[in-house]
Order: sequence, then structure tokens, then C-alpha cells
Amino acid sequence: MTTPVSFEFNRRVLLSTLALLLALIGSLRPKSAVAQTDILQSWSDGPAKTSIIDFVARVTTQGGPDFVPAEQRIAVFDNDGTLWCEQPMYVQLAFILDRVKAMAPLHPEWKDKQPFKAVLEDDMKTLSESGERGMLELGMVTHAGMTTDEFAKIVSDWLATARHPRFKRPYTGIVYQPMLELLGYLRANGFKTFIVSGGGIEFMRPWSERVYGVPPEQVVGSSIKTRFEMRDGRPTLFRLPEVNFIDDKGGKPVGINEHIGRRAIAAFGNSDGDLEMLQWATLSGGVRLGLIVHHTDAEREYAYDRQSHFGKLDTALDAAALNKWTVVDMKSDWRRVFAFE
Amino acid sequence: MTTPVSFEFNRRVLLSTLALLLALIGSLRPKSAVAQTDILQSWSDGPAKTSIIDFVARVTTQGGPDFVPAEQRIAVFDNDGTLWCEQPMYVQLAFILDRVKAMAPLHPEWKDKQPFKAVLEDDMKTLSESGERGMLELGMVTHAGMTTDEFAKIVSDWLATARHPRFKRPYTGIVYQPMLELLGYLRANGFKTFIVSGGGIEFMRPWSERVYGVPPEQVVGSSIKTRFEMRDGRPTLFRLPEVNFIDDKGGKPVGINEHIGRRAIAAFGNSDGDLEMLQWATLSGGVRLGLIVHHTDAEREYAYDRQSHFGKLDTALDAAALNKWTVVDMKSDWRRVFAFE
Repeated sequence: MTTPVSFEFNRRVLLSTLALLLALIGSLRPKSAVAQTDILQSWSDGPAKTSIIDFVARVTTQGGPDFVPAEQRIAVFDNDGTLWCEQPMYVQLAFILDRVKAMAPLHPEWKDKQPFKAVLEDDMKTLSESGERGMLELGMVTHAGMTTDEFAKIVSDWLATARHPRFKRPYTGIVYQPMLELLGYLRANGFKTFIVSGGGIEFMRPWSERVYGVPPEQVVGSSIKTRFEMRDGRPTLFRLPEVNFIDDKGGKPVGINEHIGRRAIAAFGNSDGDLEMLQWATLSGGVRLGLIVHHTDAEREYAYDRQSHFGKLDTALDAAALNKWTVVDMKSDWRRVFAFE
Repeated sequence: MTTPVSFEFNRRVLLSTLALLLALIGSLRPKSAVAQTDILQSWSDGPAKTSIIDFVARVTTQGGPDFVPAEQRIAVFDNDGTLWCEQPMYVQLAFILDRVKAMAPLHPEWKDKQPFKAVLEDDMKTLSESGERGMLELGMVTHAGMTTDEFAKIVSDWLATARHPRFKRPYTGIVYQPMLELLGYLRANGFKTFIVSGGGIEFMRPWSERVYGVPPEQVVGSSIKTRFEMRDGRPTLFRLPEVNFIDDKGGKPVGINEHIGRRAIAAFGNSDGDLEMLQWATLSGGVRLGLIVHHTDAEREYAYDRQSHFGKLDTALDAAALNKWTVVDMKSDWRRVFAFE
């Protein structure tokens, strides 16, 4: 009667091998929505987290009434105030001010010329009085006049040394941990994640993949014009002091269509600049997710909305109530704001 | 002595199960470059095919001196004359002429107004004399004045019924079989494939995924401006009669940078309009592949180059020799041109 023993032994080997191989196969497949919710560990249990999980479960349930094929699972994220901190000023504005100061030795005339004088003297009142025209002038001086490769290096070098004035850390560390988890959660469920920001497209691309896991080709943003030139036998793109595209408000759906060519089914923002993007994503029929990050936590981050100079949230907050978009109360919905807490 | 028999039996079951499961796992993984060359079955053995396989082997050999990580394996393809037939005229021009005729009943004034009169009377001589301004006018009338969704439907409806005048088949069937295989071969080796065409971005997107396996977000092309509007509570993008971007010649590197944000490492074209794209991709150091499809086969397709009205190949052919780009001789390098042969 050795057969059963031998058979048992071999069946055990067979079964354990099978289990191992099935586990291997499993690890190569996208996991189900339910299995992945532990990714969202910085989110408190509550209506915001529930709305996210419910949405993902509905659009990923094969055979269900709300199923959306993976290739159509496009999610778009604003950057300033949605993925990283935009207070006490937009990071790109801090970059502009630092660059003007760094470039000043080559421009002695700036000492007596506005809006440069105001920047060099840290005179924020005069600077803000220079208005959009002043900001555009500062933007062009600091963003144009070099190749795309040179500009990418300037941005990377600046980010390596610049520090947030309150948190004393690199700006790429002042990103919201719950939103990083949300990006990962969506990707684990077959979504393709895009950034759609009013900020400069070439200001974000040098670090978006490393920080957010979003590759350059999935970044949409504002841009200036470039011109192709052969220089010493090498092809370059030279950055021109001329606005190409403003990816804000009604420009966001335009940018999404131009770059992605599909409507998103989930959109994440925090300010009035994101209103049209959320409308475009959510009001076209089907189960959709619109979400607004409401900055309500002055202790861990900042508290601001309808009156803020940066990231004003007014009409989009009213629209959120009207359209049943999820409003994240940062104070109660986020167990942790930053990874370094 | 039943044990060995039983053991043998079970080992056979175990081994065959293992083999099955390993095959399953294998089918979920990208295959190696070497194993995939049989995809290129419509390519004759010769220098063109060899240059493609050598390039792919070099950039995908982990630890090798020319290895390129998968996320940087960007390949860009021109469309007209590179992926599908551009003779006896660009497909989009055939679309424009058909649309003018279809729209004519609503525009009785066109009977006496150029360049519309020439279109309605099939007077190609007068039409070509109307030059760029005439073509722009026809382009705007047929491409603007509707929402993006409406335009996509117009394109899809037209493609469903229009036929190529010589091959009597839908235009989406007049695509080059060797290039379809090349797209698949590159993707099987970790490349991300993009279309970068002088043609309209929204003219290609409705069918690029189905025909080429290239999703809308990986299509770059020329475009007109759009405007976001809420209409009856629904968000729309309205197409305006104003050029936004011309994705041709020096515009191709600009478009690649704007949409992809990385340099391609392989570029495929067929005309002078692709020259700057090939320079941008191949002349920046590292092992790169530039390839030009030379239309040399009047019997199976068309033969044209330096004197052609559509897809003129002159300076780019000289540049190919200078820069050691691969030049495909359609007649000898392609065993088959179209799938229907």
C-alpha cells in the first residue's frame, strides 16, 4: 500500500507548485479594487474615501452596468493645491523670484526697472501691483531664451536647493500623501493618470515621474512657444518669449482634448481654475467622479477658499454642491497630509 | 514496485502542469527581441530589416552599452505615406472634397464661388491654383463649426463609406502591412508608439487605435482651435475656424516635445516634412534609428519621390544618406505591401 503515500506526496508537491505558480500569475495581473483599498491608508474612513472606493468598484466591475474598459479609465489631476502645496505662493512663482535674483548680476538695469526692482527688493506690494503684465514679463525673462534641455536643467537644479519657507523642505517633498496614494490606487485599478495644470508643462516634467509616477507624456500644462533649430549640427528646441497655451479654466478641457483625445472619467482639483475640467469630465453621462480638495487645515497645512490670492475656491465650491462632486475636508478626511509628518 | 509507476505518473502530471503554467506566465510577459522577429514576416531579409532588428536588440539588451530603459523607448511614426497610402492625394484631402460636395445643398452660393466651384465641378486644375489659401478655406469650412464629438462622428461615417479610387477599399484598409508589423514588433519590445503627422489630430484619433493599435493620447497632429462651452447643461468643445498648430517640418519636433516631453529614439517617415523629426530623434547621441519609406513600387502601390505633389521626398533623402538613416526600398524590402494582396 505504498501507492497512496506516494500519490499523496506528489499531489502535495503538485498542489503547492500550482499555488506558487498561480500566485506568480496573480502578481502579474492588476488586482481587484477591493484588494487595493489598503493603499488609501492616509484617508480617514468617511464619505470622501467611500465615494472614491465606490466609484472605482463600479467602473471596474466587469459585467456591471457602470463598467468602463481600462483604456477609457482616464483620470486627470490639477497640480497646484491638489497634488502639492500652493501656499504661501505658487511654487513656480517662487522659482521666478529666485531666478530673477540669480540672473540680476547680468542685468544691472533691473535695479531701476519694475517689476524687477520690486523682486530684488522683496517688495511684494509693488510686485502684485504690476499685475498680469508684470508677471508675464517676469515669466518670459525666466522661462524663455534657452533650449528645452537647458530649461529642464535649470528647474532641476533649483528644486534641488530651494526650500519651502514654512516646512523647510524641498518642494517635491511638500506633496500630499493621500493624493499620492490615490494616484497609486487608481493606477492599480487600470487607470491612466494625467496631470492637467495651469502651471508650466516644462516646469513639471523634470520631476513628475519621480514624485508622482506620472511620465512626461502624461503631463498637460501651460506652455510658451518653441522653435526647432540645428545648432552646430545638433537639433535643439529654443524657448521663445511668447505664450503658446494657458491650461487654466476653459483651457483645461481644451488641453485634455488636445493631449489625451478622450474625456476623463475622474477629475481632481481644488480651485475655480478646475471648474471647467470637472464639468468636462463629469457631466457627459455615465458614472463619473469629480473631487475637490478643500484646504481646511491651517495647523497641518493652510486654510483658505473663497478669498485666497492663490487657489481661490468659490464658484467651483458652489458647483461641487450642485453636481454632487466629492469635497475633501482636509482636516477630517486626511489622517496625514505630508509623508514627513 | 508500484511506487515508481505512481511517481512517474505524477511527475508527468506535475511537469505538464508546470509547462502549461509557465506558458501562461510567458504569455503575460513581453517577449525578447530575438523571439519576436517572426512578427516582421512581410519584410524581406535585407539591410532594412537587419537595421531594425539590430537597433532593437542593442537598445533592449540589459547591461549592454546601448541599453535604453523601457520608459524612454519612444518611437514616432509619420502617417501619410508612412503608415497609409497618400496617393493619388492625401486621404484628408479626399475627405475635404467629399464633405464640400455633401454640404453643398446647404450652400447654394458655392456654385459660383471659388474654390468651392472647382470642387463641385471636379476641376482639379483650378482647385490647385487656389493654393494654400484656397485649401485653408476648404479645410476650415469642413473641419470647424461643430463640436469635437460631432466631428469625430463625421470622420467615422465618412471612412465607413469612402473608398480608395484605385484599390476600391476603405482607406483604413490601405495601410502598409510591414509597418503594422513594425508597430507591433516595437511594442512587443517595450516601445511606446506614437503617430506624429501633418494630418489633423482629430481626423486620425477616431480610428488610430483600431487600425494601428495607437490610442488617441499617443496621436500628435495638426489642429484647429477649440472653445469650451456649456450647452444645455452639457460641456462641449466647439471647433473654431482658426489654425492652432501645424505639425509638419520644424513643427514635428515642437509637437513631439509638447505632447510627449521626451525625445524619441526611433523615427519613421517618408517625406521632407519628416526631416526635422528624424533629425530631432537621431542626432542627439546614442544609438538611434531613423527610417524613411521610399515609394519605389508603382505596380503594388506608387513610385514617387523628388517631384511628387504629395509626400515629396528630396532633402530628406539626401539627409538619409548623410545621417545613415535606413531607407526602405518598398519594391525589394517589402514582401507584401497591403494585407489584402
